[in-house]
Amino acid sequence: MNGRVKVGIIGSQFEADIHAASFQMAPEEAEVVAVASPTPGHAEALAGRYGIPRVFTDYRQMLLEKDIGLVTIAAPNYLHARMTLDCARAGKHVVCEKPLSMTLEEADEMLEVCRREGVLLLYAEELFFTPKYVKAKEMAAQGAFGRVYLVKQSEKHFGPHSPWFWDVERSGGGVFMDMGCHGIAFCHWFLDRSSIRSVYCQMGTYVHRDKTQGEDDSLCILEFENGAVGLVENSWARRGGMDDRVEVHGEGGVTYANLHMGNALPTYSEYGYGYAVEKAPGTKGWSYPVFEELWNYGFPQEMRHFARCVRGKEEPAATGEDGRVVMEALYAGYASAARGGKINLPFRPRNVKKPIDLWLGNPSAG
Amino acid sequence: MNGRVKVGIIGSQFEADIHAASFQMAPEEAEVVAVASPTPGHAEALAGRYGIPRVFTDYRQMLLEKDIGLVTIAAPNYLHARMTLDCARAGKHVVCEKPLSMTLEEADEMLEVCRREGVLLLYAEELFFTPKYVKAKEMAAQGAFGRVYLVKQSEKHFGPHSPWFWDVERSGGGVFMDMGCHGIAFCHWFLDRSSIRSVYCQMGTYVHRDKTQGEDDSLCILEFENGAVGLVENSWARRGGMDDRVEVHGEGGVTYANLHMGNALPTYSEYGYGYAVEKAPGTKGWSYPVFEELWNYGFPQEMRHFARCVRGKEEPAATGEDGRVVMEALYAGYASAARGGKINLPFRPRNVKKPIDLWLGNPSAG
Amino acid sequence: MNGRVKVGIIGSQFEADIHAASFQMAPEEAEVVAVASPTPGHAEALAGRYGIPRVFTDYRQMLLEKDIGLVTIAAPNYLHARMTLDCARAGKHVVCEKPLSMTLEEADEMLEVCRREGVLLLYAEELFFTPKYVKAKEMAAQGAFGRVYLVKQSEKHFGPHSPWFWDVERSGGGVFMDMGCHGIAFCHWFLDRSSIRSVYCQMGTYVHRDKTQGEDDSLCILEFENGAVGLVENSWARRGGMDDRVEVHGEGGVTYANLHMGNALPTYSEYGYGYAVEKAPGTKGWSYPVFEELWNYGFPQEMRHFARCVRGKEEPAATGEDGRVVMEALYAGYASAARGGKINLPFRPRNVKKPIDLWLGNPSAG
Amino acid sequence: MNGRVKVGIIGSQFEADIHAASFQMAPEEAEVVAVASPTPGHAEALAGRYGIPRVFTDYRQMLLEKDIGLVTIAAPNYLHARMTLDCARAGKHVVCEKPLSMTLEEADEMLEVCRREGVLLLYAEELFFTPKYVKAKEMAAQGAFGRVYLVKQSEKHFGPHSPWFWDVERSGGGVFMDMGCHGIAFCHWFLDRSSIRSVYCQMGTYVHRDKTQGEDDSLCILEFENGAVGLVENSWARRGGMDDRVEVHGEGGVTYANLHMGNALPTYSEYGYGYAVEKAPGTKGWSYPVFEELWNYGFPQEMRHFARCVRGKEEPAATGEDGRVVMEALYAGYASAARGGKINLPFRPRNVKKPIDLWLGNPSAG
Repeated sequence: MNGRVKVGIIGSQFEADIHAASFQMAPEEAEVVAVASPTPGHAEALAGRYGIPRVFTDYRQMLLEKDIGLVTIAAPNYLHARMTLDCARAGKHVVCEKPLSMTLEEADEMLEVCRREGVLLLYAEELFFTPKYVKAKEMAAQGAFGRVYLVKQSEKHFGPHSPWFWDVERSGGGVFMDMGCHGIAFCHWFLDRSSIRSVYCQMGTYVHRDKTQGEDDSLCILEFENGAVGLVENSWARRGGMDDRVEVHGEGGVTYANLHMGNALPTYSEYGYGYAVEKAPGTKGWSYPVFEELWNYGFPQEMRHFARCVRGKEEPAATGEDGRVVMEALYAGYASAARGGKINLPFRPRNVKKPIDLWLGNPSAG
Repeated sequence: MNGRVKVGIIGSQFEADIHAASFQMAPEEAEVVAVASPTPGHAEALAGRYGIPRVFTDYRQMLLEKDIGLVTIAAPNYLHARMTLDCARAGKHVVCEKPLSMTLEEADEMLEVCRREGVLLLYAEELFFTPKYVKAKEMAAQGAFGRVYLVKQSEKHFGPHSPWFWDVERSGGGVFMDMGCHGIAFCHWFLDRSSIRSVYCQMGTYVHRDKTQGEDDSLCILEFENGAVGLVENSWARRGGMDDRVEVHGEGGVTYANLHMGNALPTYSEYGYGYAVEKAPGTKGWSYPVFEELWNYGFPQEMRHFARCVRGKEEPAATGEDGRVVMEALYAGYASAARGGKINLPFRPRNVKKPIDLWLGNPSAG
Repeated sequence: MNGRVKVGIIGSQFEADIHAASFQMAPEEAEVVAVASPTPGHAEALAGRYGIPRVFTDYRQMLLEKDIGLVTIAAPNYLHARMTLDCARAGKHVVCEKPLSMTLEEADEMLEVCRREGVLLLYAEELFFTPKYVKAKEMAAQGAFGRVYLVKQSEKHFGPHSPWFWDVERSGGGVFMDMGCHGIAFCHWFLDRSSIRSVYCQMGTYVHRDKTQGEDDSLCILEFENGAVGLVENSWARRGGMDDRVEVHGEGGVTYANLHMGNALPTYSEYGYGYAVEKAPGTKGWSYPVFEELWNYGFPQEMRHFARCVRGKEEPAATGEDGRVVMEALYAGYASAARGGKINLPFRPRNVKKPIDLWLGNPSAG
Repeated sequence: MNGRVKVGIIGSQFEADIHAASFQMAPEEAEVVAVASPTPGHAEALAGRYGIPRVFTDYRQMLLEKDIGLVTIAAPNYLHARMTLDCARAGKHVVCEKPLSMTLEEADEMLEVCRREGVLLLYAEELFFTPKYVKAKEMAAQGAFGRVYLVKQSEKHFGPHSPWFWDVERSGGGVFMDMGCHGIAFCHWFLDRSSIRSVYCQMGTYVHRDKTQGEDDSLCILEFENGAVGLVENSWARRGGMDDRVEVHGEGGVTYANLHMGNALPTYSEYGYGYAVEKAPGTKGWSYPVFEELWNYGFPQEMRHFARCVRGKEEPAATGEDGRVVMEALYAGYASAARGGKINLPFRPRNVKKPIDLWLGNPSAG
């Protein structure tokens, strides 16, 4: 591909906004030319904010645009598979938000169809690009910690930004599905994609029972083929704004990476100010404002990388295969929480409609 | 200007490397096409690292290249004025490293000639672009702190990276000249360029007397026209790696921005690893590695901005005038340290060869 | 009891030293009058450091001293039960170090005999007295966090101070036995002694396989009757000095208590200095020295409290019953790690010689 | 003196409460038997809280009590001298709160009379006992930092707890008088009482002009005989609760001691809780609660030490002479702020009624 990649975004809310903003920071590689969202006015609003010329209410119409080379999917989880298939069949490369799908069957089909159609299935796991975490991985590769025996990743806040997350029919699960997928992907990536051997999960719904059947707090222990352990902690019940952390423990050393309170400017304000951090409760009193939030997460770096993959300049660092590994671990996690025992992988239960059914005891699962 | 700015760099060491790396991160705006350094092999080495096609030993030869629109000066302080004048007369826009010059006369001539020749004189004060500090300024503008009465900026390490800094004939002064210029510029900028009313300095040479006549530690108190005070602390005597901090105190709030230990990953390593932070003593034991150091300083943002200024897309946010304000405060600071009293501005002593003479008692000063 | 309690210490090493130092800080309540240790010279050394008048090589001789009212046991785990019984039968109140015993049978006998003999069985869990953690508990009681759903406690370093810890015959287990007992006790206490409903453990020997059969890293998830979850993390494989932390997560708030790096003075030293913190690797380079280490752990507060309990001025806040709860959870933890599933309590396997057998698969366990 | 010291307290507010609480923590050394305060009911309230048996409205009546050996003065600054003289003439040892007096003449008389009467004049500078700062001093003595060239101490909050502080007739000055005295004493003590050679001060009234003529923010640079520099920062204009910090910079190392945010438990609470820290604005949202505040300041350690001095068991570590050194530096600081130049010591202006007159330009000063 000679020129910049032309990008279409499916979605118009939180994640779609991040996609648009991120591509704008890599203008030499990509240009967002279209956005599609079924809700009247939503796509227009995003288009207005970012100067995106073409607006669609039906994403399938957008897929007819010949010049679009890459489509990003920022829609609820239950739509990921169908949209990915449509994109692939229209010959578009795909960036799919996390988690990859609702079921392993869907994941397999997505991988298969994208392969067959010759398009890239890129998995939007930004933690692979978060500069603070990338530094931790580089230090590990340089031998700083010797053999790593424990990797921890934690992501917590007080609940998601869109209503569909609370509805397990559309999300597939609670906080473990929503953010556990980050921690699982992170540990797997950090350990150079050593296979996951087993998963154990503790989960519960402590705060938001009025809103959701999904768990709002989870602890997940992963055993990896190389002998290391992962500990993934997630919560929709943690007050005080977004929290995202990593720890790496090796026989030769340890590092702590705190993405939010770590990078922030401890601030006291009697009057408040514009914005502190994602999901912060306010800006009066003490707060921990972050700077260049998108960049510190790695979103622009991620989207730039994806554009360069489409242009053949880089090899994909986050793929549908990564997303599928995460899906299997999500299945195992929910099943483990139900059984009170660790689940060994590979784990391929049949007739699963959505991962959380394995915990909620939906009779169709098994 | 239609296409990307073509850039030539004068210099081949620490700062020149930062310039080259920073422009590479803004490929849509600028392209480094040439580098000039008198020491045999040095320019080649930099050119090799960054794929810069043209190499010169005499920067004046480089100035003959028609397509170069912008030249950055990363040479010892005593060369800034002469090089700037040469660039301007060759019709090149100029990015001059800090401090702007050795004397106020030089600064005035630089401003005058660049104005006359119709080229931009851009002042390489990266703190205006440091994202963490920019966030502090944004919060101030949003009223977070109410009226600000005290701004603090501190930059400390264990001594400069190039030998010429130790030689006051080439540098013009010690750590106050080298890094105090950052803090003065920062406070002035943070306070929306309120005029500096007076300067008081405490300085001494505590550690490096064998290497330099220059001060290796300084405290500087600035009074501003709007009633606020600045406290600028600098040291070449602080062990443990680079330290760069800001505090903002207002009647309605306060914020703390620690650029290095703040953003870092507290790390223990028995074996060591690649790189922790500028001027760190090592990577074994506890260390505070930073990530994406250039970006966190704001260098790529700064160079991108300068390229866009040359292309007429942005208005310069750091100019020769800023550099001249700093020069006057540097004069006042050295004079104040000598007299033990605050110096009121405007301050324009005559026959000053270099700022530190006002402290060292060089008879020519006064 | 009218005057100060006269105390005898069994042991002469690390913990015995802490006992002696701690009682010295409560001179109005207690006086250490005797120390017993079988190794020639050891008791004398401790006695010399603290001005303890009477020295014994056989603790049973010490128990004949009429005026001694309280005996503290700072001996290897496998001796706790026998010594406690001897003390009780001699009419002495007992402070027993953690963990309480090797087996539940021992624990039950200790409780029974002390009750029968009318002496107090005090359990040396200093975390109940650690002032930073006590503050967290006070805030919880004041409603700061609303309903608490997750309590975390972590204690990590690079391996124990005495060789007997490595020998599971004398210790009963690895790091989970050695320090997991702290975290279990802490969570139980923090949650107002809500019963433990189940235990899940992940453990492994990653670093010290040449020294021990015991696990050197463990993760433990506890479910409590009140619905809250405990996460206890322990390691003998964490470099860089002692690490002790607590987190409390409630639907209404969260707090983080870091005992060592939190309270410490971040310090860089080119030359080193006296002492940083327990098990620190050195004092050159960056280090995190703590101040008044014993006090910040709560040891003097604990021993003063125990002396006051003996004098009838306070009710015991850490008892043999607490120690027994921990023992049952330790059993369950080891069994859980072996089975890969959570163990529900009450859990009372028979013929257990030592807790770790439940993990190591000793055929006698079951 | 054989038994415990019997103590009388003059005052009933903030500081008097600290004295009473602190002595209670050293019951083997001291017993508070009396309190005197002129305001009806105040002394009774304090007596009630701490079980103090005797209550006086006129402290001179209290001085008639034969058994009282030590009197602490927790009254406004302008009363320190008169009360000290009265105590000394009644044969009582004296603990005088900071700053020692209003004038150098008073200080000299206090020293002289106490010497003549054979009583100790103990100066209540708790920073000499603050365990975190004591650790820094120990490390310095052990050579951690090599030769120290810069000591910084800072104490800031949003304004004093009692109205008399705002009235310069009763306090003698603003925040520099109130808290600068701590920083000056600290630097002097930290540098092994090297003489102060000069003082420079920057001060202003930024926030509380409606309440006081006194400065509410000050920066003070001290030069010491041994070549080191002190930087003392104080504010009554800093929001967000008490802030107390120390930095030590030596050619061989550096340490940072943050007393409040350093030791605290970073906490978010939706509902609030009992108490965070002195002068904190609230406990909802993010806060930094401290634990065992008195102990972490060193108050109980200080009062215990003073009681032991009276009993002849220890040599005074904080004396009237220390207080006099501080007084001279306070004079010099105010004079320096007025003149805009450093003041060399010894400095003994005549006819000074109160230190702040040297800044406010009271014609009687000079």
